[in-house]
Amino acid sequence: MNALPTPPYYAVIFTSRRTPGDHGYADMAAQMAALAAQQPGYLGAESARGDDGLGLTVSYWRSEADIAAWRRHAEHQIARDTGRRDWYAHYTLRVAKVERAYSWQHTDGPADPQP
Amino acid sequence: MNALPTPPYYAVIFTSRRTPGDHGYADMAAQMAALAAQQPGYLGAESARGDDGLGLTVSYWRSEADIAAWRRHAEHQIARDTGRRDWYAHYTLRVAKVERAYSWQHTDGPADPQP
Repeated sequence: MNALPTPPYYAVIFTSRRTPGDHGYADMAAQMAALAAQQPGYLGAESARGDDGLGLTVSYWRSEADIAAWRRHAEHQIARDTGRRDWYAHYTLRVAKVERAYSWQHTDGPADPQP
Repeated sequence: MNALPTPPYYAVIFTSRRTPGDHGYADMAAQMAALAAQQPGYLGAESARGDDGLGLTVSYWRSEADIAAWRRHAEHQIARDTGRRDWYAHYTLRVAKVERAYSWQHTDGPADPQP
């Protein structure tokens, strides 16, 4: 993920547990990630799924209006319906305003906090 | 994770990339998770690390003051120093105010959105 702007910006925290099997999930997830990245106000996204099946995806957006517009996107709506039918046993979605951010990168010298 | 209260509450989004090898990480991570869960204002946490090494941990807190108190906790400070020395190639920490939350659970009947 590229560096994000200085806060404030918004995060959508999506926590999910998959149903067994793929059912077209991997293809659609890749499509949706690519489509999201083309939307106005999209800043980036990070995703991980552990061996226990719990997945976390956090996408970052400039504003709540940008999140709402992506929510209304026709292809995204279809993917969401399919997700509820075929892919997810459970999910929670949280919209949060990022107020502070701090990054650290390992170097041989002293820590380099940002910003 | 138990159900969280109705928003608003706070999320700490911790994105990390590990260095190779364990170096005591798994034991300390379990200890820190248990210790965090005992802190005032702790609401819950979710964590996943994918095969590509990217890890996401989101912990939820009642207030920014509770997050600040956990940040100052002596054992947590020691773990953080060790993390920077031994465990992490890179990390980003974001503090965000959760404004809305929505959960969905697969059932044979109609969807049951909450709240």
